Amino acid sequence: MRILLVGAGGTLGSAVRKAFTERGHEVVGVGRTGGDLICDVTDTAAVARMYAQVGPLDAVTVAAGDAVFRPLADMAADDFVATFRGKALGQLELVRQGVRHVAATGSFTLVSGILTEEPIVAGSAASAANGAVEAFVRAAAIELPPQRINAVSPTVLEESLPAYGPFFTGMQSVPAARAATAYVRSVEGAQTGQVYQVHC
Amino acid sequence: MRILLVGAGGTLGSAVRKAFTERGHEVVGVGRTGGDLICDVTDTAAVARMYAQVGPLDAVTVAAGDAVFRPLADMAADDFVATFRGKALGQLELVRQGVRHVAATGSFTLVSGILTEEPIVAGSAASAANGAVEAFVRAAAIELPPQRINAVSPTVLEESLPAYGPFFTGMQSVPAARAATAYVRSVEGAQTGQVYQVHC
Repeated sequence: MRILLVGAGGTLGSAVRKAFTERGHEVVGVGRTGGDLICDVTDTAAVARMYAQVGPLDAVTVAAGDAVFRPLADMAADDFVATFRGKALGQLELVRQGVRHVAATGSFTLVSGILTEEPIVAGSAASAANGAVEAFVRAAAIELPPQRINAVSPTVLEESLPAYGPFFTGMQSVPAARAATAYVRSVEGAQTGQVYQVHC
Repeated sequence: MRILLVGAGGTLGSAVRKAFTERGHEVVGVGRTGGDLICDVTDTAAVARMYAQVGPLDAVTVAAGDAVFRPLADMAADDFVATFRGKALGQLELVRQGVRHVAATGSFTLVSGILTEEPIVAGSAASAANGAVEAFVRAAAIELPPQRINAVSPTVLEESLPAYGPFFTGMQSVPAARAATAYVRSVEGAQTGQVYQVHC
């Protein structure tokens, strides 16, 4: 398959690229500053340009998202707005525009995270954005067939512990390679409307 | 208790106001165009002005939210943005600012809806916004104590069937008065981080 992978250069994205490539798929990596294609997916017009130039796709997959982590008492109104834009709206836009560019039986795989169900201090904006992504996936799944859509919800990645470990004290981490297998399941499988939790 | 009720003049809000009043509470009704206080809660500065003038509060409750209902194939990028603003961000902002205005042991009660878990065609934006509200409630609940926060998730209201019935074909409706009891439970109870589903 020919698979678009947004965030291909990140910690999770690198593992997903490797998993897809090992399975014989062609990966078109998208990044904000580098990759096969450069695109800021929070920019609607940039997404349109990206889809116009990328060519035929069997799957769109996302392994990137920005969220503001800050105690609720210190959160600014703009932090919620920025997190919706950085983690939720860009992914919804990739689907909204992508339905016309992905194969008729192709698929979308978005990324949420464990914070949807298991909150941490300073993670309220990220939880909200993740909850939006997961509910959207369930809703879009009844309108997209025969195209499919799922989300992958990883816990904190082992490789991200130096940066995010203190936020996730006492919570199990998983290797990025393990989260990547859920992307393979979503793309090569036949289910839709699922949230594949990779929490332990 | 002295309870702020956003959307007090709406179908759900009227029933919630009645339930609170019958329980002996004082309700301060907030509406965009009428009520005890006028405030567009999607306007951060307007929320600040509203809290500055309202006086002591034991609870903040929300029974209003705007969402765009449109098939995913016809949805515009702005429809997702408008729905996050109309159904999710205003509620998050009421909590973010409200923590400094609500009693130390007071509570917040937000509104989501059945579409978080049970999608309908044309409801993908509403599902996303509802999912955001519910995940936020779970997350905020670990940072707010002794203040509490819950969400009420109603299905379509009997009183709203003339307007929304065709979207909810075959789904059970409930009287607004029944959804209102969940607000009483949230405000007078002791739980936090809960989503009270009023789905049948």
